[in-house]
Amino acid sequence: MLEKNLEKYAELAVRVGVNIQKGQTLFIQAPLPSAPLVRKIAKKAYEEGAKHVYVEWSDEEITYIKFKHAPEEALHEYPMWLAQGREELAKGGAAFLSIYAPNPDLLKDIDPKRVAAANKAAGVALQNYRSRLMADHNCWSLIAVPTPAWAKKVFPDLNEDEAIEKLWDVIFRVTRVDQDDPIAAWHEHNQRLAKIVDYLNEKQYAKLIYNGPGTDLTVELPEGHIWAGGAAKSTNGVFFNPNIPTEEVFTMPHKDGTNGVVRNTKPLNYGGNVIDGFTLTFKDGKVVDFTAEVGYETLKHLLDTDEGARRLGEIALVPHRSPISESNLVFYNTLFDENAASHLALGKAYPTNLENGANMSADELAARGANDSLVHEDFMIGSGELNVDGVTKDGTREPIMRNGNWALPL
Amino acid sequence: MLEKNLEKYAELAVRVGVNIQKGQTLFIQAPLPSAPLVRKIAKKAYEEGAKHVYVEWSDEEITYIKFKHAPEEALHEYPMWLAQGREELAKGGAAFLSIYAPNPDLLKDIDPKRVAAANKAAGVALQNYRSRLMADHNCWSLIAVPTPAWAKKVFPDLNEDEAIEKLWDVIFRVTRVDQDDPIAAWHEHNQRLAKIVDYLNEKQYAKLIYNGPGTDLTVELPEGHIWAGGAAKSTNGVFFNPNIPTEEVFTMPHKDGTNGVVRNTKPLNYGGNVIDGFTLTFKDGKVVDFTAEVGYETLKHLLDTDEGARRLGEIALVPHRSPISESNLVFYNTLFDENAASHLALGKAYPTNLENGANMSADELAARGANDSLVHEDFMIGSGELNVDGVTKDGTREPIMRNGNWALPL
Ligand SMILES: [Zn+2]
Ligand SMILES: [Zn+2]
Ligand SMILES: [Zn+2]
Ligand SMILES: [Zn+2]
Repeated sequence: MLEKNLEKYAELAVRVGVNIQKGQTLFIQAPLPSAPLVRKIAKKAYEEGAKHVYVEWSDEEITYIKFKHAPEEALHEYPMWLAQGREELAKGGAAFLSIYAPNPDLLKDIDPKRVAAANKAAGVALQNYRSRLMADHNCWSLIAVPTPAWAKKVFPDLNEDEAIEKLWDVIFRVTRVDQDDPIAAWHEHNQRLAKIVDYLNEKQYAKLIYNGPGTDLTVELPEGHIWAGGAAKSTNGVFFNPNIPTEEVFTMPHKDGTNGVVRNTKPLNYGGNVIDGFTLTFKDGKVVDFTAEVGYETLKHLLDTDEGARRLGEIALVPHRSPISESNLVFYNTLFDENAASHLALGKAYPTNLENGANMSADELAARGANDSLVHEDFMIGSGELNVDGVTKDGTREPIMRNGNWALPL
Repeated sequence: MLEKNLEKYAELAVRVGVNIQKGQTLFIQAPLPSAPLVRKIAKKAYEEGAKHVYVEWSDEEITYIKFKHAPEEALHEYPMWLAQGREELAKGGAAFLSIYAPNPDLLKDIDPKRVAAANKAAGVALQNYRSRLMADHNCWSLIAVPTPAWAKKVFPDLNEDEAIEKLWDVIFRVTRVDQDDPIAAWHEHNQRLAKIVDYLNEKQYAKLIYNGPGTDLTVELPEGHIWAGGAAKSTNGVFFNPNIPTEEVFTMPHKDGTNGVVRNTKPLNYGGNVIDGFTLTFKDGKVVDFTAEVGYETLKHLLDTDEGARRLGEIALVPHRSPISESNLVFYNTLFDENAASHLALGKAYPTNLENGANMSADELAARGANDSLVHEDFMIGSGELNVDGVTKDGTREPIMRNGNWALPL
């Protein structure tokens, strides 16, 4: 059963996730425990006509050992040959698949300053590569695989083997891999999301107003903002699904237009440290005050990364009634938690969320209200008590979400 | 017990193998099953003052999938960013540790042409990097770890777990890890080898004559040849042990001075294919005829790699009475088999086997008789029936080995 579902999951990643094309190179980032899946993905990719499949393996224990034992200066350095290699592959038209299996507690005894230094060094080194992907110049996709640590975090009462099995079950359900024809199911799902996206794009709301426990926030949207969701289209015309699973529709806020206060509804795992019970107070787009019950220092480091880390780069709407949300689990994993709840992101905006944005210079993007930063960190604000209204250019206020679910006349 | 020996093995690799220095970067090539050891090595390296430890993991199943399913053209390409990265690290003074755990039968159903193409592409791309290491500009070391496939090949009658445990036992014994103080044991061992090396260097034999079943070979040695063995000294003065285990002393033959016939005594595993029962006939340094009972095509591809692949680049003497030899096992693994038997290598010579060779240009090296090639492949010719004589410049013939063991007056 696991074997069969792994096959289907591999095929979904290759055909729907990155949608590999004949002669294309596939670059996979994979943690060691994902080896059984990665092998199936590599085989499938070659069968679909891939030319090269490169795997960059990572081991969380080696990562931990580095953070624990490497000298301070080492954490400020990122191997440039690795970054350049990634950039070269991207320019050559490769597709990028990341297999995501973070251990939310991995770095909890590490000084957040060391983690922030390493994140920043990676951000600087990988800036061009990440910019290309965020502008959809390459097809890319993110899928998840259980690791012992992650599974035990989600199901603390089960033993390790049971927890992993249970987490696989959930992953297969929310990624539609348990359905007879996951590829067809994803085509349908993408069409459903496209309808909402088309409606919101037509409306071109001037701003959104969020209300919920601890949240009273107004977010201005820039002229020519574009809502997206489900499948994306790369600049050379190939459809791909950046996130598996995905339930969100999202767009770009104006970087100077957010005001009010917002409170998170699920913990945020930032570089191996958990931040929770936090509020951010915005004035003219910028976080001017913040509190946190857990991980205050980590949040401070995140906000202090650069100027853009204190501003929003993404707003995303996710119905409270979604397969992931209805699992009622906290995943401590952004890929899942962000698709279980409406969220905002601090940091870099997706240029593709602006008309013709993928072809704009950094200055043009900024002039149009797009935020820039080395970071892009989603945090969850959705719940069954969240209401979202849209305000049209002529000032009419219309319901978008009520009690966390869609309230659109579709 | 395994845990404790793994710790000692890791320490041996870090302190005796690459002899890591403060502030240095350690680059580790490691197959996935070596993860438990690699983690210990990384920790130890940081404790000894390493700045960065980078691990390039590899998975033999992914390798197999590539050879089986990738398009032909893909096998002629090696990722240049990877080769450049390796070269940059080498120029920056990194130490290189390879963890070696080949599956001798991995590629047995793959067309040898595809394997030869990939080996050649890697040889071209990694030429500068490999040249640096062969000239000891960087500290480097090779150690082994059991994998299921390798262990089962060595111990076909045991089940997988038993075979792995047994192979670990053998590895710990022949690497002296099972001794109380492996580091001290290696210092002694290195001194013992240094005595033989000093004796042979003093003698400066004009040629060696090999006699054994199927073997009647004369090998001319170049002016200023240098015998080496045990610890090596990098060009910036750091002692390291390139091979763990090692029992050989070796030098450079003159590329135009080998005549006669030689027959192998143990199978050669070349890029996942076994070659065995083979003879090579030399005339003025070059293989002019060859036969093979197993892997004739593979041997042909090896010899046809380039001009230098038909000439010798190394001659090595190993006593028949050595810990590895006395285990009476065939390891199908060059690191072990080459230290169980006297051997020759087809292909590139070590510049360090010539006085001042590490500072000579390719042309100077060639003029002095050093062979050059993209390949360097050891093959075993030692046995209890091998006799080796040295012939001095004035024509005196003196015994070096009798019945496979040292016959020196030491
Ligand atoms: Zn999002
Ligand atoms: Zn996001
Ligand atoms: Zn050798
Ligand atoms: Zn050799």
